[in-house]
Amino acid sequence: MTTLLSSFEARTGAVLDQVPASTPAAVDAACDAAAAAFAPWQAASGAERGALLRALAAALEGDRAELVALADRETALGPIRLNGELDRTAFQLRRFADLAERGEPFAFTDDPAVAGPPPAGHPLMQRWSVPLGPVAMFSASNFPFAFSVLGGDTASALAAGCPVVVKAHSGHLLLSNRVFGLVQGVLVALNLPAGLVSMVQGGGRDIGVRLVRHPAIAAGAFTGSTQGGAALAAEAAARPRPIPFFGELGSVNPVVALPAKLATDGAALAATLAGSITLGCGQFCTNPGVIVLIDELQPGLDTKAINDGFVAQLAEALRPQQPHAMLTTAMRGAFEAGVAHWAAAGAEMLVQDTAAAGQPPRPVLAQVSALDFIARSALREEVFGPSSLIVRAASLAQALQVLQAVGGSLTVTLWGVEQASDAARALVRGAMAIAGRVLFAGVPTGVAVTAAQQHGGPWPSSSRPESTSVGDAAMARFLRPVCLQDAPGWLSARAGQPV
Amino acid sequence: MTTLLSSFEARTGAVLDQVPASTPAAVDAACDAAAAAFAPWQAASGAERGALLRALAAALEGDRAELVALADRETALGPIRLNGELDRTAFQLRRFADLAERGEPFAFTDDPAVAGPPPAGHPLMQRWSVPLGPVAMFSASNFPFAFSVLGGDTASALAAGCPVVVKAHSGHLLLSNRVFGLVQGVLVALNLPAGLVSMVQGGGRDIGVRLVRHPAIAAGAFTGSTQGGAALAAEAAARPRPIPFFGELGSVNPVVALPAKLATDGAALAATLAGSITLGCGQFCTNPGVIVLIDELQPGLDTKAINDGFVAQLAEALRPQQPHAMLTTAMRGAFEAGVAHWAAAGAEMLVQDTAAAGQPPRPVLAQVSALDFIARSALREEVFGPSSLIVRAASLAQALQVLQAVGGSLTVTLWGVEQASDAARALVRGAMAIAGRVLFAGVPTGVAVTAAQQHGGPWPSSSRPESTSVGDAAMARFLRPVCLQDAPGWLSARAGQPV
Repeated sequence: MTTLLSSFEARTGAVLDQVPASTPAAVDAACDAAAAAFAPWQAASGAERGALLRALAAALEGDRAELVALADRETALGPIRLNGELDRTAFQLRRFADLAERGEPFAFTDDPAVAGPPPAGHPLMQRWSVPLGPVAMFSASNFPFAFSVLGGDTASALAAGCPVVVKAHSGHLLLSNRVFGLVQGVLVALNLPAGLVSMVQGGGRDIGVRLVRHPAIAAGAFTGSTQGGAALAAEAAARPRPIPFFGELGSVNPVVALPAKLATDGAALAATLAGSITLGCGQFCTNPGVIVLIDELQPGLDTKAINDGFVAQLAEALRPQQPHAMLTTAMRGAFEAGVAHWAAAGAEMLVQDTAAAGQPPRPVLAQVSALDFIARSALREEVFGPSSLIVRAASLAQALQVLQAVGGSLTVTLWGVEQASDAARALVRGAMAIAGRVLFAGVPTGVAVTAAQQHGGPWPSSSRPESTSVGDAAMARFLRPVCLQDAPGWLSARAGQPV
Repeated sequence: MTTLLSSFEARTGAVLDQVPASTPAAVDAACDAAAAAFAPWQAASGAERGALLRALAAALEGDRAELVALADRETALGPIRLNGELDRTAFQLRRFADLAERGEPFAFTDDPAVAGPPPAGHPLMQRWSVPLGPVAMFSASNFPFAFSVLGGDTASALAAGCPVVVKAHSGHLLLSNRVFGLVQGVLVALNLPAGLVSMVQGGGRDIGVRLVRHPAIAAGAFTGSTQGGAALAAEAAARPRPIPFFGELGSVNPVVALPAKLATDGAALAATLAGSITLGCGQFCTNPGVIVLIDELQPGLDTKAINDGFVAQLAEALRPQQPHAMLTTAMRGAFEAGVAHWAAAGAEMLVQDTAAAGQPPRPVLAQVSALDFIARSALREEVFGPSSLIVRAASLAQALQVLQAVGGSLTVTLWGVEQASDAARALVRGAMAIAGRVLFAGVPTGVAVTAAQQHGGPWPSSSRPESTSVGDAAMARFLRPVCLQDAPGWLSARAGQPV
């Protein structure tokens, strides 16, 4: 009997359609097909890899109107955001095409022989990069294009020379199936094996666990909750042959705002921050979930009054915001539970309007002391949705302890360190110690696809903080070095190229 | 009550002396001291890091005669090898000093702002590297200098900006204490915190587990058995905050020798291989433990006769070899048990002399069919000692299946692929798929410390095959990227430097 999975209209919860869940045999077949596609794809040139990635970008753009309309029904993210996300997805497919064409996956270190005895003397050595093999890619709920079937994980894995088995997210099943249909068309048109990109779908955790456990799978890439990612990472580590599992997990993204900055720019920053907290209904990995204010007295600044004023400005800017519906009813439930945990842990609720029945959630702002935040782990957990927690620190030292208590975050934002000072240096050090990205202006939502981007921070924000799921370095996750020693001429002459 | 650990004379098993085991409180104190030393060491310049590493190298060399004599008593590795290993250890300390002084740990990617809207437009971004924090370093039995207290793990961690807590190996306790005494003297002379390098010692697994579990420890580095490394890697993954664990584990290092090569160079290659198998009593991670011969008929070559001839040459070259004593009686016992497993699994024992009572082990050569090797996992396990297993493959395809059955190895050596051919390419692909280093001449023992070196292969030879414990890239294990977005002028101007 086939299990059916339902796609829901995000704004109403009504069932849109149903699709069959993948059987265990179908998961295995996808992995076996990926294994069979590995050798020819590993041998493909940068130009061939680039051609596939460009064709996939063009296919997305060619079906834009239908894709965005379908995505909007399943996610409620709205056409402006979804068109922008499709643009970004096509952009990063082409960016990895550029990298493949420029030979980045085939980069090597040449280390000519040095005459003489060891330790200084050594033979000719060349350090090549080789792809790991088939990648199990777990789509995210909150980016139906950019972290889904043809998102950055798939693009970077294909560029690196790895086939991909996509686990579709149950929050946008119809969109995933439509995008996957485009992929299949492109693979046929380019005469590439169908197993190069497969897709599986299922409701519970069984499908994902089976995928991670399959012997042909060489790496996992995941975007989602810390709990879900940790469970799959444990599966990856417990295999007879453990595999790397690149999990981009939960994050609270502290913003530390210094009073001198708030004294001059408070109103504008409050407006910007309110927009960031509610953007996409707060459903971003980089949503600013913790705002640290420092009440320590400073010469010529009534810091407490400034911070109180900023809190009032932020509350005022937040109240009129109209977040759209959340991605799924389960996520809406988790959001409300998370806010309730804050209140139960003693947070002062500053903004908390009750949403009308059947309406999207209202934004939430709460406040706690740094001592409470440090003492109570419930206050440090990510609340995924349009909410933020103000943490009042009595001193710079206490603000640094707040960052330490967070432990790991995708981002930390520092407002007010434009000038060098001991305090500025201490904050930069404290932020760099726990984050993958430190911002000095603006808000953490919005992750540019660039050469220097780092979208992965210390645990619990990532399972592999040395890696990134966004930016050029994302491809490095799926490559491994191999040193060739005394390679014969025919081989060393084509160092880095597929053999 | 203090637990005493015994140091043994490797050649006789007699107790040399006793040293106290570290208490749990001492382990914690070492980790806490490392945590306290992290901030100042992270802020140290490349010149300061280089000065420490150079002083450590000089201290080793200054105490050479005593160190080598003590190491020889505890390991039986002999003064020639031990002097060479001390040279290598000093060389790699100075090499990481060079890298630190050149600014390698502070390397960054500059990514200037691009005007315009996303996805193409983006702010100024700079990708820095930051050290992870205190490293727990587990010394190896078989390299009392190069993979011990001041070995490559310690050198690369210090260069990266990380304090180190060394777990001394019980096989050379007195040497470890003497080297650690030198370290303490250098730290005092350079006015550096004692916690920058600590040492703990213990007999069972408790000390190591406590070390890996300590909250201050940010990474583990280990050289040893697959079993021991896997257990510690599991501890590292099960922490509340998981940490990376870089384990360089067991490896069988296949040598694939093509008949045409053996037809011309068989005698010389047999002599070289016999030397490699028995070098250091076979106690190298890169010992050639599996020799694959291909009996497939070829025009003009009586392959089976050539291979039989080479086996006879190798047996003849191996029989007169006189390995020295093994490092410990436990390792001697494990060696004999491993050889017994081969015999029990049906291997034909070609060379297996009985050692006289109290004498070092005799070299062992055995032979199996490829089909048996693939079918019986007992034949694929590393036998640490002066031994090798010949695997007779009926075809090139079967030889490739043998490599696949090995699954992961630090090295694969290919003899006879000097000319390009389909067979040569298939072997290169098969070797690169399972190895960290592929050699085309010579033998895998001897691992040069160079820019392109890769000493880490797929599981079970390493827990992190993307990393290396030897060569310049060893330092990358202890660094993590952080992207600074819109960094103010005072900060972006000193990109990469300690803040």
